[in-house]
Amino acid sequence: MGRVRAACPLVHHITNYVTVNDCANATICAGGSPVMTDEALDLPGMVPLASAVVLNMGTLNVRTVESMVQAGKIANEHGIPVLFDPVGAGATPYRTQTAERILREVKVSVIKGNAGEIGVLAGTGGEVKGVDSHGGTDTAAAVRTLAQRTGAVTAATGETDYVSDGEKTYTLRNGDALLGKISGTGCMVSSVAGCYIGACGVSAESVAAGITVFNTAAELAVKGGKVFGPASFKTKVLDTLYSMEPGNADSLARFD
Amino acid sequence: MGRVRAACPLVHHITNYVTVNDCANATICAGGSPVMTDEALDLPGMVPLASAVVLNMGTLNVRTVESMVQAGKIANEHGIPVLFDPVGAGATPYRTQTAERILREVKVSVIKGNAGEIGVLAGTGGEVKGVDSHGGTDTAAAVRTLAQRTGAVTAATGETDYVSDGEKTYTLRNGDALLGKISGTGCMVSSVAGCYIGACGVSAESVAAGITVFNTAAELAVKGGKVFGPASFKTKVLDTLYSMEPGNADSLARFD
Amino acid sequence: MGRVRAACPLVHHITNYVTVNDCANATICAGGSPVMTDEALDLPGMVPLASAVVLNMGTLNVRTVESMVQAGKIANEHGIPVLFDPVGAGATPYRTQTAERILREVKVSVIKGNAGEIGVLAGTGGEVKGVDSHGGTDTAAAVRTLAQRTGAVTAATGETDYVSDGEKTYTLRNGDALLGKISGTGCMVSSVAGCYIGACGVSAESVAAGITVFNTAAELAVKGGKVFGPASFKTKVLDTLYSMEPGNADSLARFD
Repeated sequence: MGRVRAACPLVHHITNYVTVNDCANATICAGGSPVMTDEALDLPGMVPLASAVVLNMGTLNVRTVESMVQAGKIANEHGIPVLFDPVGAGATPYRTQTAERILREVKVSVIKGNAGEIGVLAGTGGEVKGVDSHGGTDTAAAVRTLAQRTGAVTAATGETDYVSDGEKTYTLRNGDALLGKISGTGCMVSSVAGCYIGACGVSAESVAAGITVFNTAAELAVKGGKVFGPASFKTKVLDTLYSMEPGNADSLARFD
Repeated sequence: MGRVRAACPLVHHITNYVTVNDCANATICAGGSPVMTDEALDLPGMVPLASAVVLNMGTLNVRTVESMVQAGKIANEHGIPVLFDPVGAGATPYRTQTAERILREVKVSVIKGNAGEIGVLAGTGGEVKGVDSHGGTDTAAAVRTLAQRTGAVTAATGETDYVSDGEKTYTLRNGDALLGKISGTGCMVSSVAGCYIGACGVSAESVAAGITVFNTAAELAVKGGKVFGPASFKTKVLDTLYSMEPGNADSLARFD
Repeated sequence: MGRVRAACPLVHHITNYVTVNDCANATICAGGSPVMTDEALDLPGMVPLASAVVLNMGTLNVRTVESMVQAGKIANEHGIPVLFDPVGAGATPYRTQTAERILREVKVSVIKGNAGEIGVLAGTGGEVKGVDSHGGTDTAAAVRTLAQRTGAVTAATGETDYVSDGEKTYTLRNGDALLGKISGTGCMVSSVAGCYIGACGVSAESVAAGITVFNTAAELAVKGGKVFGPASFKTKVLDTLYSMEPGNADSLARFD
């Protein structure tokens, strides 16, 4: 957390128009600097400035998919890590095919989805309805399998989160049930994880740290009171993320 | 409200980029599950999964208008109800023509606009300036007329709301003046009404229930205190919508 | 402030999808009425209804750049003032070229950027990283230079704000450090300034008033308590902006 704030990594997002404002503010609160631009003509100038690139296909379209591929390739040329959030993979053929295309054409450093999306991409099973999902029977196996096949650190978030680099697999147990009641939780986690890989390098530990910081912010938000429902919870999570000290997340982290 | 929460209807939105996050969160707080996707290639896979489709032309463009028409047609083929919010119809020729085109090419189950938009589409008069409006002299007549002509349950929202199926016309008197001071009130009402028709079927009663639940949440939000202006009000409305019990809306509902 | 509320100017925005909701709500809280539409076919009908047009290139793309130019030209024909926010000019060649194109093809009434963007456009130096920036050594000189060259009232916002019409240059010292910790501060200021030029006419004083009202709302928000971080701060700023009385800003304003 201290390293992220010291580095203030520029995190380039090509993301969806539903939760993009929350992604921008989560990036700032985590210590990064967000930039969102998806025009092909703007990418050659902007991507190389970034410390990390987050590609999120929540409201993908033909134009922005091309931009995601292009941004990913530019990032690859410059050695900038790419985090890919395959929102809705498995829900429709177009989303599944697009996710597979991005994984084929871009060297992705981190894949971060929910259990269903990761299960579908790993081929281990998983059900995706709209943008919500249920994983297969063994999400830990799914992240490990996908990490081994792609070479990307792979994370599946949900009530329990799993992160694997293909060898080590972490099980993360922080968070609060209200996270499932706001749109954009997963997207914000991707942004925060993007800050961590931008500042600390790509590793299962960086991704696990990003997820855990966000989830412990959620726990602290609820413990701090004044949360009356999902909307005040979201406000409180962002405020808490902003004011957390490194020790907060460490003392609360539950993982193995 | 209990039926919506039990069914958790997937509500597919093609909506504007101004208020889309509020629409997503209002859907969740009302008990539904939102999905937003407007790419033509994604619609054949996604629309059939939905319990209801909400088409909102707030920030329409040539591409997304085609997507709205296509999504509407797919929904029609699958017997999925379509709620249409003709934002800004009457303000510009392009918006009026687009609204008329959608009503011509898609079998719409529910039309939900403000008094001006409905007045324009009904041909009974109405003035639309930007996306705000004033209805003609008789909004009750306008909703009845448009319902009769289109076969769609028609609602006009404002300080007083009117809902008609062409025979019965309900007059709804809940809400709070602050609803007029936040962007997206009408869009959120459309999302909540989309949840209701998705879970309870298409009827004037379903639409009236959705509107009334949202408007009583607004009343309870203000009564609960801690509302200092439009922004804290919006947070409180969403929180209240999430935590409302079926009895809350029933006991507060004012209609005839 | 009283004049803005009395006039309730319709402010047409072509802006980015990151902060657009905040722009809409800031416009309402300042006393205006926002409309966002970027489809070329919709502009001939909508632009002439507006009291001011705000062009913000935060998430520009080839289509919306054409719309910005077209909207600007329609506004010019109708004598409607155009405020241009050149987000990210200087960060990439595409953004710099687009800003220069808009300034060449549209008669812009007000340019409002951060110190880096203004420095780049004025040719006086400035560094832009992503959408954040640092100005050159003399931002007061930069706004004056750009105002003289373009004929537009020019403002550079930051910890200290500068506004110049090429002759008089105001230095504005209101605001709070938390404004730098939320996405969209600058965009909201542009929306509020758009309300002021729409209601009060184009002048350095109108623009300075819009900036100062927003910044004093930020100060009052913090002084009023209950601000725990950036997210609750944003809520409080909008609430405060909505409930401010003309005397509030006047008594707090610090400028020379």
